[in-house]
Amino acid sequence: MYPKNCWYVAAHANELTDKLFARTILNQAVIFWRTKDGGVAALEDRCPHRLVPLSTGTAVDGEVQCGYHGIRFGADGFCTHVPGQDTAPRSPRVRTFPVAERHNLIWIWMGAEDLADEDLIPDIHWLDAPGWASTTGHLHFKCDYRLINDNLLDLSHETFIHKHTIGNDSVADSPAITNIIDRRVVRVHREMPNIEPPPFFALSQGHDRRINRWQIAIYMAPGFNMTEVGFHPVDTDRVEGHLMMRPIHIITPETDHSAHYIWAVARNFRLDDDALDANLWTQIDHTFKEDRALLEAQDRRLQAEGMPKVPQLAAKIDAGPVAGRRLLEAMIRQEAEDPRYCAPPAPLADDDVVTMPFAMAAE
Amino acid sequence: MYPKNCWYVAAHANELTDKLFARTILNQAVIFWRTKDGGVAALEDRCPHRLVPLSTGTAVDGEVQCGYHGIRFGADGFCTHVPGQDTAPRSPRVRTFPVAERHNLIWIWMGAEDLADEDLIPDIHWLDAPGWASTTGHLHFKCDYRLINDNLLDLSHETFIHKHTIGNDSVADSPAITNIIDRRVVRVHREMPNIEPPPFFALSQGHDRRINRWQIAIYMAPGFNMTEVGFHPVDTDRVEGHLMMRPIHIITPETDHSAHYIWAVARNFRLDDDALDANLWTQIDHTFKEDRALLEAQDRRLQAEGMPKVPQLAAKIDAGPVAGRRLLEAMIRQEAEDPRYCAPPAPLADDDVVTMPFAMAAE
Amino acid sequence: MYPKNCWYVAAHANELTDKLFARTILNQAVIFWRTKDGGVAALEDRCPHRLVPLSTGTAVDGEVQCGYHGIRFGADGFCTHVPGQDTAPRSPRVRTFPVAERHNLIWIWMGAEDLADEDLIPDIHWLDAPGWASTTGHLHFKCDYRLINDNLLDLSHETFIHKHTIGNDSVADSPAITNIIDRRVVRVHREMPNIEPPPFFALSQGHDRRINRWQIAIYMAPGFNMTEVGFHPVDTDRVEGHLMMRPIHIITPETDHSAHYIWAVARNFRLDDDALDANLWTQIDHTFKEDRALLEAQDRRLQAEGMPKVPQLAAKIDAGPVAGRRLLEAMIRQEAEDPRYCAPPAPLADDDVVTMPFAMAAE
Repeated sequence: MYPKNCWYVAAHANELTDKLFARTILNQAVIFWRTKDGGVAALEDRCPHRLVPLSTGTAVDGEVQCGYHGIRFGADGFCTHVPGQDTAPRSPRVRTFPVAERHNLIWIWMGAEDLADEDLIPDIHWLDAPGWASTTGHLHFKCDYRLINDNLLDLSHETFIHKHTIGNDSVADSPAITNIIDRRVVRVHREMPNIEPPPFFALSQGHDRRINRWQIAIYMAPGFNMTEVGFHPVDTDRVEGHLMMRPIHIITPETDHSAHYIWAVARNFRLDDDALDANLWTQIDHTFKEDRALLEAQDRRLQAEGMPKVPQLAAKIDAGPVAGRRLLEAMIRQEAEDPRYCAPPAPLADDDVVTMPFAMAAE
Repeated sequence: MYPKNCWYVAAHANELTDKLFARTILNQAVIFWRTKDGGVAALEDRCPHRLVPLSTGTAVDGEVQCGYHGIRFGADGFCTHVPGQDTAPRSPRVRTFPVAERHNLIWIWMGAEDLADEDLIPDIHWLDAPGWASTTGHLHFKCDYRLINDNLLDLSHETFIHKHTIGNDSVADSPAITNIIDRRVVRVHREMPNIEPPPFFALSQGHDRRINRWQIAIYMAPGFNMTEVGFHPVDTDRVEGHLMMRPIHIITPETDHSAHYIWAVARNFRLDDDALDANLWTQIDHTFKEDRALLEAQDRRLQAEGMPKVPQLAAKIDAGPVAGRRLLEAMIRQEAEDPRYCAPPAPLADDDVVTMPFAMAAE
Repeated sequence: MYPKNCWYVAAHANELTDKLFARTILNQAVIFWRTKDGGVAALEDRCPHRLVPLSTGTAVDGEVQCGYHGIRFGADGFCTHVPGQDTAPRSPRVRTFPVAERHNLIWIWMGAEDLADEDLIPDIHWLDAPGWASTTGHLHFKCDYRLINDNLLDLSHETFIHKHTIGNDSVADSPAITNIIDRRVVRVHREMPNIEPPPFFALSQGHDRRINRWQIAIYMAPGFNMTEVGFHPVDTDRVEGHLMMRPIHIITPETDHSAHYIWAVARNFRLDDDALDANLWTQIDHTFKEDRALLEAQDRRLQAEGMPKVPQLAAKIDAGPVAGRRLLEAMIRQEAEDPRYCAPPAPLADDDVVTMPFAMAAE
C-alpha cells in the first residue's frame, strides 16, 4: 500500500526539541528527539526490556531513558545504562531510523537503511528560501493516505467542500488539463479567467474585484502534493500583479487507515505579516478539516465494502487522481520486484512544472 | 433474522423535508428527501463515483448532490449532472427503494422491488384519524430488534422497570391471556380491576382515584407493536368513562444489534392539549429509555454468549413473547422457502383485537 | 493464565452492603450482597430467564430480584418467586460461588466448589489486628494482572515512575536481594542506608532528616503482593525509632487484560490519625495511578505484538519478577496436571519473611 524505500516527512522541524516526540509512521511507532549537537535521533518507540513505549520516558543528556525502569539508550540504539548495575548489555539494540532535516522538515527513511540517500529528498526549497514565507500545521486524518492524494489531485471538490473559503462554482465549471512529467509527477492545471473571488481570496487581496485565478495540483508519489494557487485582479498584469501561494501537503501514512497531513503554505507576498499568518492558519486549518470529515466518511464506507477500487463512475475530473494512483502503484510494484529500488525525485519547481501558467496565459 | 419482503417504517412523516435525511435500515444506509412534488425519494446512501455517502451532500432542485464532487442523481437513481462536463453517464445508477407515506409514517420496502404493494401496509388509521391525537418520537436502541418485541409482549416488566411511571405491583400480579389471531398477530390481554393508579396515570386523569385498568399488547411480525392502555375510575362506567391510549411501537432493525424505536402514542381524549402532549412526551421518552438501558445490557450479555435462545426458565409471562417469536420465525422461514412470499397484513383494530376488553369486561 | 483453585479477593468487606454489588472476576460476572444474617452471597450475574444481568435488579429481603421481570433467587441460587404465578421452578439454578470474609476482605473461590477450604486463605492478620491501622482503596487497571505483579516485584521503578512521591535515585541505585521461600513466596529485599527521604516519607515523618530506608517486596502467586516499607531517621535506633507500612496489593484478574487492584496500606503508627489517613489515601491513589498509566501502555504494546515473553533485555532488577512468574507458572501447571490441586498458603509474616531486615540490619 506504500513504498518503503523513500523519504517520508515525519514532522515540521520546529516540532522537535530536546524532549521526546512520538509519532507512528508506516505502522511503526517512532520516537524522536534532538541530541546534544542539535541533530535528530529516531528510534523505535519500544524499550527492549519489557516492551514499554520509550515515549513514557524522558530525554536525558541526549539519550532516551525509559519511563519504567530508567534504562537508557543512545541515539545509535545501544543500551548505555541499566540502573543498579555497572555494565550495560550490548544487546538487544533498539532499532534506529535514518533521519534528515531539510527545508524545515524532518524526513525519515523506513526502508533498507543503507539506501537512505539524502539526494533522494525532493527539492522544495521555497519552504526555506528568501522571498517566501510559510504558515504551517499538522492534522491527523483517520483515512487511507491515498484518499488524501486523490482529493488533492482533483480540486473541483473545492466548489462543494470548501464553498465558504476557497471554492465557488468557477472551480468545478472550469476544465483542467492533466499532464504526467518524467513518469514521476502528475500535474493538473486549471485556469479560471475573470471570476468572482471566493471568500478566502479577499483575505489576501484586501478587496473583491473580479480576478483571474489559476491552480496547479502537483503530485509525486507516494505522498507529496503541492497546489500552486495564483490570482490577480482582472485589471492588473498577470506577471506583475499576481499573488501566489504554494500550499505543500505532505501525506505520510500513519497506519493503513490513518495519515499525517503535514502542511506548509508558502507565499510570495506580505512576508512579515503576522496577522495575515494567523488568519491564514485559521482558514487553512478549517479548510483541511472540511476535507477530513468527508475523507474519513469515505474511508469508513470503503472499509465496509472491503476497499473496492474507485472511481466506479467515469468522470473527466478523475484524470488527475487516476494518473496519480498509477504512478504510486508503479512505484510500489518496482519496489516489490527489486527491494533495492528507490524512485528518484523529480523537479517540482522548474518552468515545466509550476511556472507554466504564465506561458499559457500568454498564449 | 428479519424478513425483507415487507414494509418497514423508516421515519415519521414530519421528519422528512426537502433536506437530506439519512438512516440505516436492515444494514443498508439509505438517504431520503422530499422531491419537488412533495413525494419521498429513497436512494442508497452511497455515491457510485467514489463511494462517499451521499448524505455528505445536499438536496438541490429535488435531486441529491454529492458532497464531494457535486455529482447529482435524481430520485430514480440516474446521474443527471457531473460538474465540468456536458453529459452525465447512464450508469452506474444508484439503488432506489420503494417508499410510501401513510398514517403519518414513511414506509420503505427493502425486498424485491416489484413486490412492493402498498396494500400490504397495515391499517393503523388512528394515527391520522379524527378523534385521535398523537405524541411521537424516535429512539435508537443498541440491541437486536427482537428483544424489543419480546419486551413489548410481556408487560409484566412495567412493575420492575417502570415503577416510577406506568408500573406497579398490580401489573405483574395480574394474569394475562395470550391469543394468536389469523396466524399473524399475537394479542396479550391483562385486566387489572380496582387498583391504585401508577404515577403516570394521574397525569392523564388529574387525580388518583382507584381505577380499573386494562392493557392489550398487540404484535405483528416483524416489528409492529401496539399497546392498548385503558382505564377508568372504579366509580365510573367503563364504556363512557374510560381514557384510552394506543401506544404504537414500530421497531425497525438498523443493524443486527441496533434498532429504530419509532413510536406514536395515540389517545382519544384531550386532543388539543399541548401541555399534556409535552408532558406525555417527557414521560414516554423517559419510560422507553428505561427499557433501552436494560435491553442493551441484555444484548451485550447475549452476544457474549453467542446469542443463545431465551427464555431458559419457563414462566407464564413468556406466552406472549414466545408466540411472537414463532410468528416471526415462520415469516422468515416462508420467505426463505419462497423468495416472493409476502406476509399479508392482519386487522389490528377490529372487534376481535383491540376492542375486545369491553366485551370481556361485560362478561 | 491464572489458577482457579485458590481464593481471590473480590472486594473490601466494607464495599458490601445489603445492596447488590457487581464485579467481574476471572472473566466471570458475579453479583454480591449481604444476606439477612450479614453473610455474603455470590451468584453469577446472569438471570437464567432471559440472561439479563441480575445486577440490573435489587436485593429484596436478602434475595436478588431481577430488574427485568422481578424473578427472585435466593443466596443458594434457587428461584424463589416468579411474579404472576404461585410456584417457582426448581431449575435452572443460578451458579453460586463460595465466599469468605476475613481480614476485612471478601474472598471468592472460582474453582471446584468442594475444594474451597477457608484454611487456604493466607494469614494477613495485620489488616485487622490490634496495633495496626489501614488505608484502603480499589483501582481498575486495563492490563494483564501479571504485569502488575511484575511491577511490584521490582521496586526500582519507584525512581522513575514515582519520583514525586516514594521514589528517588537511592531506590534504583541500591541492590536488591531476591529469595524464594517455601517454593511459594518471592521476597525481594533492598536496604537504602543514610539517604534523602523521598517526598512521601516527609508526610509520615513530619520532617526531612536523612533516613535509613528498607523495602521488602513479598509475592505469593497468583496475585498477592505486600511491600514492607520501613524507615527511621539515621540518628535514631532502628528497632525503636522506625515507622513501618505494609502496603498490601491484591491483584485479581477481571479479564485477560484487566484487573482489580485492591489495596490496603497497614501502618503501625499514628493509628487514629484521620487526617494522616486522608493524606495517605490521596498520595497512594495517585502513586498507583502512575503505575496504571504505564502498565496499560505496556499491555497495549504487548497485545499488539501477540504477548511475547518479557523481559527481553537481561537486567539484575528482574530477578524478583522472573522468580514470581516461575512460581505462578508452576501453580498453573500443577493445576493443569491435577485439577484438584490447591496450592497451600505460605507464612507471610514470620521472622523469615517480613521481619528479617532487623536481623540483617544488625549483622
